[in-house]
Amino acid sequence: MLGPLNHIAIAVPDLAGAVALYGKIGAMVSPPHDLPEHGVTVVFIQFLNTKIELLYPLGEDSPIRSFLAKNPSGGIHHICFEVDDIHATGRKVSGLGVRMLGSGNPKAGAHGLPVLFAHPADFFGTLVEFEQAIAT
Amino acid sequence: MLGPLNHIAIAVPDLAGAVALYGKIGAMVSPPHDLPEHGVTVVFIQFLNTKIELLYPLGEDSPIRSFLAKNPSGGIHHICFEVDDIHATGRKVSGLGVRMLGSGNPKAGAHGLPVLFAHPADFFGTLVEFEQAIAT
Repeated sequence: MLGPLNHIAIAVPDLAGAVALYGKIGAMVSPPHDLPEHGVTVVFIQFLNTKIELLYPLGEDSPIRSFLAKNPSGGIHHICFEVDDIHATGRKVSGLGVRMLGSGNPKAGAHGLPVLFAHPADFFGTLVEFEQAIAT
Repeated sequence: MLGPLNHIAIAVPDLAGAVALYGKIGAMVSPPHDLPEHGVTVVFIQFLNTKIELLYPLGEDSPIRSFLAKNPSGGIHHICFEVDDIHATGRKVSGLGVRMLGSGNPKAGAHGLPVLFAHPADFFGTLVEFEQAIAT
């Protein structure tokens, strides 16, 4: 059911500073990209086998603000796995007693693909995102 | 300088429970492996492009105990990148003003290869491990 790790999302209080640091240690960093519907500005850091998504709050209602209030230096926010069938994944994971955030129905994520988030309290403290893989 | 993401390390308070959950959602899970010199029992979860290392405390002095005291449900502990030259990485990253944990000299990590850990306060809240890649 689980495909590759799509990304590790890291919330940072200083996007320019984080971009500069990752760039200086040799990572390939994208330009910042605003996603107003998700309340974040995103920067992708591409590695050989996966990527980091740096998350920075965009707007007053950004869901990242409360995370940064609890973690002022920043921190790892979630990890995301690709799955073949997001609806089947939702049924399977829910059937194991893991709650899904929100309505429990897939919604468009930061890449425009349907995603689901499992409740971290039911996943050993890790916020896990499942993202529909692009059909090949 | 940065090679692939070698692993995401996740500390869990219930190793058998985490192994069961990841197994049930289709991940390939290794048997537990005790590393007394690091104070952890480790389980590897292999994905198509990288792996998760589940960390569980081993012994009274395990460095994972204080992390779990702060994060009772568990949580993402660190991420690890492979590098070509651990000594050059240490010099480069230190030269950017990032402190290294411990003596600052590479020590054998969980895979027996030399590793360094950068201070999370200097890395936007993320504990980053650099691991010497196996020479090819």
